[in-house]
Amino acid sequence: MPPAPNRASALRAVLSQMGVDGFILPRGDEHLGEYVAPCAERLAWLTGFTGSAGIAAILPDRAAVFSDGRYITQMDQQVDAGVWERLHIRETPPPAWLAAHGASLRIGYDPRLIGESALRPFSDAGLALVALPANPVDRIWTDRPAAPCTPCVPQPEDLAGQSSHDKRAALAASLRGAGDSALVLSDPASIAWLLNIRGQDVPYTPLSLSFAIVHDTGHVTLLIDPAKLSGPTRAWLGPDVTLLPPDALEETLRALAPARVQVDPTGNAIWFIQTLVDAGATVIRKENPCVLPKAIKNPTEQEGSRHAHLLDGVAICRFLHWLEGNATRTTELEAADRLDRFRAASPDYRGESFPAISGAGPNGAVIHYRVTPETSRALQANEVYLIDSGGQYPFGTTDITRTVWTGPDVPDADIRNAFTRVLRGHIALARARFPTGVTGHALDALARHALWDGGLDYDHGTGHGIGSYLSVHEGPATIAPVFRPVMLRAGMILSNEPGYYRPGAFGIRLENLHLVQPSPIGEAGRTFLEFEVLTHAPFDRRLIDATLLQPDEIAWLDRYHARVLERIAPQLESSARTWLEAACAPLNAG
Amino acid sequence: MPPAPNRASALRAVLSQMGVDGFILPRGDEHLGEYVAPCAERLAWLTGFTGSAGIAAILPDRAAVFSDGRYITQMDQQVDAGVWERLHIRETPPPAWLAAHGASLRIGYDPRLIGESALRPFSDAGLALVALPANPVDRIWTDRPAAPCTPCVPQPEDLAGQSSHDKRAALAASLRGAGDSALVLSDPASIAWLLNIRGQDVPYTPLSLSFAIVHDTGHVTLLIDPAKLSGPTRAWLGPDVTLLPPDALEETLRALAPARVQVDPTGNAIWFIQTLVDAGATVIRKENPCVLPKAIKNPTEQEGSRHAHLLDGVAICRFLHWLEGNATRTTELEAADRLDRFRAASPDYRGESFPAISGAGPNGAVIHYRVTPETSRALQANEVYLIDSGGQYPFGTTDITRTVWTGPDVPDADIRNAFTRVLRGHIALARARFPTGVTGHALDALARHALWDGGLDYDHGTGHGIGSYLSVHEGPATIAPVFRPVMLRAGMILSNEPGYYRPGAFGIRLENLHLVQPSPIGEAGRTFLEFEVLTHAPFDRRLIDATLLQPDEIAWLDRYHARVLERIAPQLESSARTWLEAACAPLNAG
Repeated sequence: MPPAPNRASALRAVLSQMGVDGFILPRGDEHLGEYVAPCAERLAWLTGFTGSAGIAAILPDRAAVFSDGRYITQMDQQVDAGVWERLHIRETPPPAWLAAHGASLRIGYDPRLIGESALRPFSDAGLALVALPANPVDRIWTDRPAAPCTPCVPQPEDLAGQSSHDKRAALAASLRGAGDSALVLSDPASIAWLLNIRGQDVPYTPLSLSFAIVHDTGHVTLLIDPAKLSGPTRAWLGPDVTLLPPDALEETLRALAPARVQVDPTGNAIWFIQTLVDAGATVIRKENPCVLPKAIKNPTEQEGSRHAHLLDGVAICRFLHWLEGNATRTTELEAADRLDRFRAASPDYRGESFPAISGAGPNGAVIHYRVTPETSRALQANEVYLIDSGGQYPFGTTDITRTVWTGPDVPDADIRNAFTRVLRGHIALARARFPTGVTGHALDALARHALWDGGLDYDHGTGHGIGSYLSVHEGPATIAPVFRPVMLRAGMILSNEPGYYRPGAFGIRLENLHLVQPSPIGEAGRTFLEFEVLTHAPFDRRLIDATLLQPDEIAWLDRYHARVLERIAPQLESSARTWLEAACAPLNAG
Repeated sequence: MPPAPNRASALRAVLSQMGVDGFILPRGDEHLGEYVAPCAERLAWLTGFTGSAGIAAILPDRAAVFSDGRYITQMDQQVDAGVWERLHIRETPPPAWLAAHGASLRIGYDPRLIGESALRPFSDAGLALVALPANPVDRIWTDRPAAPCTPCVPQPEDLAGQSSHDKRAALAASLRGAGDSALVLSDPASIAWLLNIRGQDVPYTPLSLSFAIVHDTGHVTLLIDPAKLSGPTRAWLGPDVTLLPPDALEETLRALAPARVQVDPTGNAIWFIQTLVDAGATVIRKENPCVLPKAIKNPTEQEGSRHAHLLDGVAICRFLHWLEGNATRTTELEAADRLDRFRAASPDYRGESFPAISGAGPNGAVIHYRVTPETSRALQANEVYLIDSGGQYPFGTTDITRTVWTGPDVPDADIRNAFTRVLRGHIALARARFPTGVTGHALDALARHALWDGGLDYDHGTGHGIGSYLSVHEGPATIAPVFRPVMLRAGMILSNEPGYYRPGAFGIRLENLHLVQPSPIGEAGRTFLEFEVLTHAPFDRRLIDATLLQPDEIAWLDRYHARVLERIAPQLESSARTWLEAACAPLNAG
């Protein structure tokens, strides 16, 4: 195995053997998901860069790593500038960089790691792209870890709320309605939802990596390492699910020809399309039909999420109480660890839903900050501390951000002004009623309005979907400045997380999860939706400037705090309960 | 000329002679604009339907007229059901209707009256479309009026704010930058803007119907009836504008081949594309490049609009004062006429910018109501009256809606609740600050938020652009539930007109025009925009329920009313001034 600085040179030698001049390596695996197993961390192994979004491009005489604004600093720290240029992906898009430096060269890519939609800008740039039969990094990464092989377990129907049989029957009916014979799934969250199974193959998300082919009969071919399957799980899957090992995938796809087969050109790697087309199948490009029903939680999943959020609320409130007494005697790392332990007091806790963002002072201004032993800062007196974390419970996934003041003095008017504007935006979105048919994009301005009014803003979306004991970031809906033609639907769970970041000084973010509900209000002929707030934890009143709030905003906050107190206090020991009572007292009384 | 009921039969005979089985007739002329000359009112002549948006489709054994929700009632009244089906254009799209009833037939269309984008759904529906060399309606419409021929006059530079030479130079530079030789313009508003000319060829908008070809040298070929041009106008156009009669258009287009020629596939009729392609030119489909600079008003146009709105505000305030004394002694028609006369007191007034919507009680709930002698209603005591109108002034175009209570009693809580929610939406949008890069769609929810909160909404956009002594509806920006990827830019003028309509009872709409301005507020690195309110007229306090307003909303309203009083009162005679003082008094003092 070559030493790290020589990995680019070793790769160039392999590329040459494979008959290409260059190579594109996105971060990600065959499932194109957010969290990947160690064996798929090729980008990190090759370049040193561990960010969750990035891509490398290598040419005979130069190479570059690209990521977005969140990760520029991290790239500079992790990636050897002597080997790799470190570039902002929007300022220098990889296709443009390759076209500028390798226009006439043969550029290889691994068709199993990139979707057709993601590959299009490279072909549009006029590059001579070559799909490689194997990943060249794997030839030099000699101590590459084995693929994960954790137990695949049933997600019981009293948690899933709908049988896999019923989900498959609905999907099969839609396939038949479209005149299509089969559907290819490579997204393990969709497979987990469809078959009511979970696993531990990747961190933070309870997935069992596998591929599936759904037939128009409702029958499913599941391609999964048989070592993951116990007898009870095989029984749970039942006779309508045929089990095959993953290396039967190509042959299984080819056998579908000449039928019409649905493939999602964004969610499936282009290899699926190439393989099916090559075998003579008719590829129907269509959005993965599991995505919308998975996002619309059924009543059981809704109830499970409420339950998860009560457990989570107890842990958060205990943590905030602990933090108030220890704000200047702890570190970012210890605080995140404490919160994990407060959550772990519940036997239902299955671990974090993502790596906690625990940022004090200037670290809080780094939007996707990930605390490590190297960066962990001791919390100081009189600073702003931001913690964004979440938990996995078998009946629901949580995600919450609170921003607190370490004290003991009163925060500057300037900080309270920014916090209160973030809070006003949070409240405006939380209170919103809106007609059916509205997208999340249309609501985004409600969360920014008060910040905009003060000349402030934040460079991230306001809300993302979340899974039911699945991914902490789940499509298809978002509440964001980018337009997506996805209507909000009753049963979706979305975050509400406006923020404000002053680089080098502090960061503020206030996040609750909302369940979209039908609203009882609405004229005849009009159907409205509203949000049920799932998250239960107080907002730090020391950071609120009540003179900036309108009476209806104070009324909302007081009602919210009263509900937090009512639901969480009975679960707390007396000192934490006393703390919560003060934290949830009506604002005008404080 | 056949009598009206027989026009469809006569048309069928002509179609047969022309070798087709059916015909598509959209409302509109060769310029695809909103207001058309009488000679282009083919849809009205053929079917009786006079709405501003509609299309007819005729087949050997059936025929239909299609329009949208605004015009369903009007279609039913105007169109002979024995000859024409009357259909909702979204429920039964014309391409679907034709495909259902004439799938195998040859369907003719006049390529001079429909854009490529508008024709696409018909070809996508699999219809056998035939471009006809002449409009078959013209063969039977024997007393068709002549094309309009009003004087084309200069729009002086002290009103236009930029010389035509400079506008043409900028356009020519962009053509050269794109490697294109010429640009075809058939939108008379773009030609009016580019050449600084105006006319009176169509109602309500000061246009001189013509076509233009802009060359990459900055030279323009203007195809216009020479009878419209006086010596001074010819001199004004100057030596860089070549004048040709309109019947030279085809030959002039053909002579452009084989160059690259820009055509807007939405704004230009498909005939331009067909003619250019046939002649061997390379057609570059691109949005009309005049649209954005025309929408971004220069400082002179901005100042002109302010001036127009002060004149207009004086007329509106005199009208509202008159109305208060005569609310139950007038009719919708008389009230609209009175307002026109109050405007005409200014020697600068050039007429209405659109037919006034003057609707009392239930007529106010008809969103695009147009008062006629047949529908005109006497205003009753204790009802809601809505008037939406605008004026043309040589330095600006106005558009304002006010909704008033005729009295003498206090309106129901229900009506005040609805009015106050509309007002809250109006205020939220008026107060908005927002970063550069935001679209009008992203702000739309701000104007609906308070209505949504009460389960109410309105079925129209919130804002449209407006011209500078040009069209009352001007692209490209809108503030609307439909997403359009057009950023708001400083210098644009947009309406703010939320509403609420209770069918059979009343309608409410509150409309001011806003000028987008850079905001002085904004953190380093962030540029913000805000609205300068151009319109000056009070909102009827009798319809406001102040208990539903938050303090910041009352503060905005009081500031707005103080500014109206300050700017308008000095122009009024004493009784109107006394009325305005009361109408603009601080709300909490009332």
